[in-house]
Amino acid sequence: MTPEEFRRYGRQVVDWIADYQERIESYPVLSRALPGEVLAGLPEHPPEEGEGFDAVLADLDRVVLPGITHWQHPSFFAYFPANASGPAMLGELLSAGLGVQGMLWATSPACTELETRVLDWLAELLDLPARFRSDGPGGGVIQDSASGAALVAILAAMHRADGGASGRDGVTGRRTVYVSSQTHSSLEKAARMAGIGAANVRVVDVDPGTLAMEPAHLDALLAEDAAAGALPVLVCATVGTTSTTAVDPVRAIGEVCRRHGVWLHVDAAYAGVAAVCPEFRWINDGLAEHADSYSTNPHKWLLTNFDCNAMWVADREPLLGALSILPEYLRNRASASGDVVDYRDWQVPLGRRFRALKLWSVIRWYGAEGLREHVRTGVRLAQDLAAAIADDPAFEVLEPHPFGLVCFRPRWDGLAGDAADAETMALMERLNASGDLYLTHTKVGGRVLLRMAIGAPATTDAHVRAAWKRIREEAAAG
Amino acid sequence: MTPEEFRRYGRQVVDWIADYQERIESYPVLSRALPGEVLAGLPEHPPEEGEGFDAVLADLDRVVLPGITHWQHPSFFAYFPANASGPAMLGELLSAGLGVQGMLWATSPACTELETRVLDWLAELLDLPARFRSDGPGGGVIQDSASGAALVAILAAMHRADGGASGRDGVTGRRTVYVSSQTHSSLEKAARMAGIGAANVRVVDVDPGTLAMEPAHLDALLAEDAAAGALPVLVCATVGTTSTTAVDPVRAIGEVCRRHGVWLHVDAAYAGVAAVCPEFRWINDGLAEHADSYSTNPHKWLLTNFDCNAMWVADREPLLGALSILPEYLRNRASASGDVVDYRDWQVPLGRRFRALKLWSVIRWYGAEGLREHVRTGVRLAQDLAAAIADDPAFEVLEPHPFGLVCFRPRWDGLAGDAADAETMALMERLNASGDLYLTHTKVGGRVLLRMAIGAPATTDAHVRAAWKRIREEAAAG
Ligand SMILES: Cc1ncc(COP(=O)(O)O)c(C=O)c1O
Ligand SMILES: Cc1ncc(COP(=O)(O)O)c(C=O)c1O
Repeated sequence: MTPEEFRRYGRQVVDWIADYQERIESYPVLSRALPGEVLAGLPEHPPEEGEGFDAVLADLDRVVLPGITHWQHPSFFAYFPANASGPAMLGELLSAGLGVQGMLWATSPACTELETRVLDWLAELLDLPARFRSDGPGGGVIQDSASGAALVAILAAMHRADGGASGRDGVTGRRTVYVSSQTHSSLEKAARMAGIGAANVRVVDVDPGTLAMEPAHLDALLAEDAAAGALPVLVCATVGTTSTTAVDPVRAIGEVCRRHGVWLHVDAAYAGVAAVCPEFRWINDGLAEHADSYSTNPHKWLLTNFDCNAMWVADREPLLGALSILPEYLRNRASASGDVVDYRDWQVPLGRRFRALKLWSVIRWYGAEGLREHVRTGVRLAQDLAAAIADDPAFEVLEPHPFGLVCFRPRWDGLAGDAADAETMALMERLNASGDLYLTHTKVGGRVLLRMAIGAPATTDAHVRAAWKRIREEAAAG
Repeated sequence: MTPEEFRRYGRQVVDWIADYQERIESYPVLSRALPGEVLAGLPEHPPEEGEGFDAVLADLDRVVLPGITHWQHPSFFAYFPANASGPAMLGELLSAGLGVQGMLWATSPACTELETRVLDWLAELLDLPARFRSDGPGGGVIQDSASGAALVAILAAMHRADGGASGRDGVTGRRTVYVSSQTHSSLEKAARMAGIGAANVRVVDVDPGTLAMEPAHLDALLAEDAAAGALPVLVCATVGTTSTTAVDPVRAIGEVCRRHGVWLHVDAAYAGVAAVCPEFRWINDGLAEHADSYSTNPHKWLLTNFDCNAMWVADREPLLGALSILPEYLRNRASASGDVVDYRDWQVPLGRRFRALKLWSVIRWYGAEGLREHVRTGVRLAQDLAAAIADDPAFEVLEPHPFGLVCFRPRWDGLAGDAADAETMALMERLNASGDLYLTHTKVGGRVLLRMAIGAPATTDAHVRAAWKRIREEAAAG
């Protein structure tokens, strides 16, 4: 494609996206495609001759869009948001346009140094501990996902715990990782991938009211496991659990970790970015003293399209110990000098694209003010919704709900247990099938709750009110 | 950013990229930035108020570009190419614009089904075995990188070898992985990450002439390790090694693997895509009978900007066994029906962006013909260069060089060993510092060789001839 053709088709694509944003509310939020339907709309064989880009755009409308679940729709309330935004998209396009591969500092110094700067900016915006900044022993890095960050944290923690023995000789002997029943499944997956094993992921009790991890039980498990000869590797505390945005007591957990000499990873994938607002800085309590690693996802609630996870470590040595490798063909003067950061030693893959550009674009376009306003809007809408639900005697709402997620259920008068759960699930399926909104569910104490996560930049009061109206009507009809 | 603002700035960014393509030859290929220079050009603190996107573009020119090593420059001959192309960039932009997160089929059926189709297309274009296609027990998936694919392959192989014991209980007992001295370092890194350990990565001898793995030595090592009680997990054969594009004898290695019941992973990160041309289909020999997993990088030589690795497995069961996990909040009707693919169970991270769009755009824009022509151009330029070097008595060229990489060195009359190597390295540093071209080095048999990898879409005869002239002159002056 020549630069002239790129100008022409590039404009078409930009217009296509702007049009998509303008008409997004005309689509059902949840795709109605049946399994195999999109596949059947695509030719079985690749084209022998090239086609124009118009043909791609035409098929995008014809085949792809009907199979899209619209994550950017203002009535998308499922899972957690995966915010996109104009500046992030343009940052992503610039990254593709430059086409650099930043595995080493030398392979594009700007790719590394802009990342370093932007992660320092974000640490400042979130008021994270000074030791996470790049001018100390720690530092930040962009990972593909919170799952990737969790795996990297476990590998670094294991390196510290056994002096590198497992990286050298393989995992020998029982190593343990500590989570709660509310911890994201990526921790168990990472423990499996790291050779620790699912059976050695120890599940610490939670307070049945707050669903927060119980430090005293963690303490007991750590003592028990160490006494039984296991090597405790990492404790994961969560700030804003996936199911209900519960917040583990990081400080108290950190004190237990410190006593046992165990690595504390804090997974704040969704909620961490809320700390752009001073009124949410309480979620950082204990980080400065205790967190060895911390991760949050600008690709969830901070307007930066997937993939962009921000991870910091308090000390980069164990990370590098776990992940560095230097074959001859990657040796270069800058790396040998020790004056530069080579981010491929901070992550699972070797190659990396220039993801810092999109985060940089976002922070500059919105500024600290704009980011705060975005978070506050989501939180306000969620609090208004929670208040409306609490006011309705036919529903109950789960307390607390400090961020943008509200969990609730109809009371289904007279029904209980499994029967009520079946009604709640059926209600959700009907709502989602309507195309008017999309929400997901979770289970707390064995009972189904609906989850409504608010935080898409396009979502307004009107969308939340309309959703709540639909839910009430549908529940009444059900 | 409103849709109208997005239209305006989107056009500016598209023009910026087209301009960049037009003026790319005016930049030094290798960035001249010193460590810390880009960092110093960026404000220490994030902006309090938002800024216009013009400000971002201005800083892109002022601060970022001087720190860019231009991977898309026609005189970039370092490492392997990381091709970008217009249709790929536009596919990436569309993916950002749609902003879907395709962890589950249900979270955007098109994101999953387009990927399935495009991977089937690519399997057809490369004439890969039928059992890699999605309509059989195997299937394809896009991974972030060949490193990610290697880790996933090891985890699947280990699951098959030990019936899932290591995922459940952790790695217990010695597990082994087999590579050669020429295998990419990502295999050792993956073995470390998977809890197997670097010391259990067994290095099989290579033929000193071809640098290809010796199946007989592999056979001996496998027998020895099994006899000593180790559990052999995976053998990695490489088609196109990083150092010199050596090709391991996949069929003979596969026969050994089959005899020992060990998983065969074929890493064709760079060279695999050459099989779009029938004259390169010999690199697929043995795959149909023996390969359990295969990976190649459209983000290297197939015009699809980073990140886009294509990975196939012959049987998806062990992969799913190793990587599936299903918490309540991800349960949904489609997944439960078993009628759909959930790609999050095929990879390390949970979330995933819609990467199939860029590969789809590339295949449609170029067609099979255009892809073949792209590969053939790179190969022809490399073969012409190799012939010119072979004709020059002051240089020697490493044989064979079947793809787009040529390894060579000046003879440095009278010098040998370390002294010659030092001259070769100094020559490379001078050439790279000139900004006229960028090449890297490797070592073969302990001696330094220069690597010149040809394959950027913008590279023409004139660029290769100019580079060769510069190299000769600089060597003569040195
Ligand atoms: C608390 C928490 N951790 C981790 C993740 C996984 O995120 P990713 O897709 O970035 O791996 C999620 C996703 O919802 C999450 O809520
Ligand atoms: C043979 C081979 N395998 C793996 C890789 C790693 O590629 P990636 O950056 O996609 O992990 C490379 C990179 O050059 C390679 O040449």
